[in-house]
Amino acid sequence: MTRFWVNGLPEGSVSALDRGLHYGDGLFETMAVIDGTPLLWARHMGRLLAGCDRLGIPIPDRATLAAELERALELADRRAVVKIIVTRGSGGRGYRAPDPVEPLRIVTLNHWPDYPPSRWLEGVHVRVCATRLARQPALAGIKHLNRLEQVLARNEWRDDETAEGLMCDDRGRLVEGTMSNVFLRIRDRIATPRLDGCGVAGTLRAELLEQAEQSGLTIDQCVVTLEDLMTADEVLICNSVFGIWPVRSVAGRDFVVGEMAAALNALAARAGYDARLYGAA
Amino acid sequence: MTRFWVNGLPEGSVSALDRGLHYGDGLFETMAVIDGTPLLWARHMGRLLAGCDRLGIPIPDRATLAAELERALELADRRAVVKIIVTRGSGGRGYRAPDPVEPLRIVTLNHWPDYPPSRWLEGVHVRVCATRLARQPALAGIKHLNRLEQVLARNEWRDDETAEGLMCDDRGRLVEGTMSNVFLRIRDRIATPRLDGCGVAGTLRAELLEQAEQSGLTIDQCVVTLEDLMTADEVLICNSVFGIWPVRSVAGRDFVVGEMAAALNALAARAGYDARLYGAA
Repeated sequence: MTRFWVNGLPEGSVSALDRGLHYGDGLFETMAVIDGTPLLWARHMGRLLAGCDRLGIPIPDRATLAAELERALELADRRAVVKIIVTRGSGGRGYRAPDPVEPLRIVTLNHWPDYPPSRWLEGVHVRVCATRLARQPALAGIKHLNRLEQVLARNEWRDDETAEGLMCDDRGRLVEGTMSNVFLRIRDRIATPRLDGCGVAGTLRAELLEQAEQSGLTIDQCVVTLEDLMTADEVLICNSVFGIWPVRSVAGRDFVVGEMAAALNALAARAGYDARLYGAA
Repeated sequence: MTRFWVNGLPEGSVSALDRGLHYGDGLFETMAVIDGTPLLWARHMGRLLAGCDRLGIPIPDRATLAAELERALELADRRAVVKIIVTRGSGGRGYRAPDPVEPLRIVTLNHWPDYPPSRWLEGVHVRVCATRLARQPALAGIKHLNRLEQVLARNEWRDDETAEGLMCDDRGRLVEGTMSNVFLRIRDRIATPRLDGCGVAGTLRAELLEQAEQSGLTIDQCVVTLEDLMTADEVLICNSVFGIWPVRSVAGRDFVVGEMAAALNALAARAGYDARLYGAA
């Protein structure tokens, strides 16, 4: 069951005039909550506010958002997922923003998704989606509510054996998964696709990049082709809910679960992404 | 004031779990209602159902939708705007669609927008927006709920003298206005941008193209550059609410209101787009 708060009040509905509904005019964040702590909270808050700034939505008060999050955390199980949505609120004739804007805040508390522990321990099978990501620098990086490309891509498969779908841009370059970012190791080089044209700059991706830099591990943010993917020695996907899943196979190609997974798992563990994610420890 | 019906019931709110809100996972239509008649209703219904088909949303029952529209029409003023939204409904973990899908239908009845009659009679000033349209063939043509590009473009200006903003794709080719389609006349040739990469295939645009063909008037659907725009003799914009507005100026360039406007206005009038739009006749 999901619990909701709309602008801090325990309500399960929003105005039918809300611009989040009419235009996807807003942003969201989805966080893992482990033992009452939202992982990477500062990064999620930072990306949310950066997204508001990019879209010209007045930045919600940090203390108010934190207090509304706190209310959800009090009711969270040992593992849970909290989602925060901020929209430009109701009103405005057509696409033009209302003046003044009164943003809407939605906080939802959700059950932990029931992923099998093998996804962390043995890795996952993924596919390459036919749906491409359009390059739109004005929206790249932020986590906005226009997600039809991900919806179309995620609905290309229904078997539970496929854990994720990887997506390319219109030039056929690898960008991300439908709900995750991607890291590859080719021999001794670790790379992750750059996200200046499209894609969501994941909070765990950002955490891994910063921690890697601090610990002297080089990770290139660069153009990654499908050929790079197919010749990689090791691949993994990450997001801020499940943490890190090694990829063991894609499109007939098998990968090892090796040194990159070990190195990035060690970095992620410092941010709380450890065995508690799959119910152990 | 706006009146709402959600799945046929007079309600002003929707579930905070609706996928229209979370992902922009749905479609919409906006129609002019003149003297109780929704203009181009069959075309709107056709595009809505084609959009459902493209996104894999179960197609709503035509008779149910028509009955819900009828309820709004009974309360409409002499001029009004009706908007219909169809979403994939609530539920589903992440981007994956729920099974089964129970689509949500929202019908809203809105006041006629208060445009000055001069927009029809003397034409409008428009601008060229800096915000570009990403090319995404999977979503081109349909009127889906992912409209952040239009929101960003429409918020590039706030003066009321500018009636519309024209948008180019990432190659700098003219595609459409934020809420309208574009027709140009260059000497004796009439053209409108092709919409296979991005843009909304407007219902009035479709009506004009079909009627023009039937009456022996050639209109090219083709690549249109900004240079074409700046060297055009005549430009107009159209949508299914306001009908046709001649463009009298863009970016320092003035256009005549001439033979193209006359020809296309005559075609539009057959579909109900006449002087009643600006309160005359």
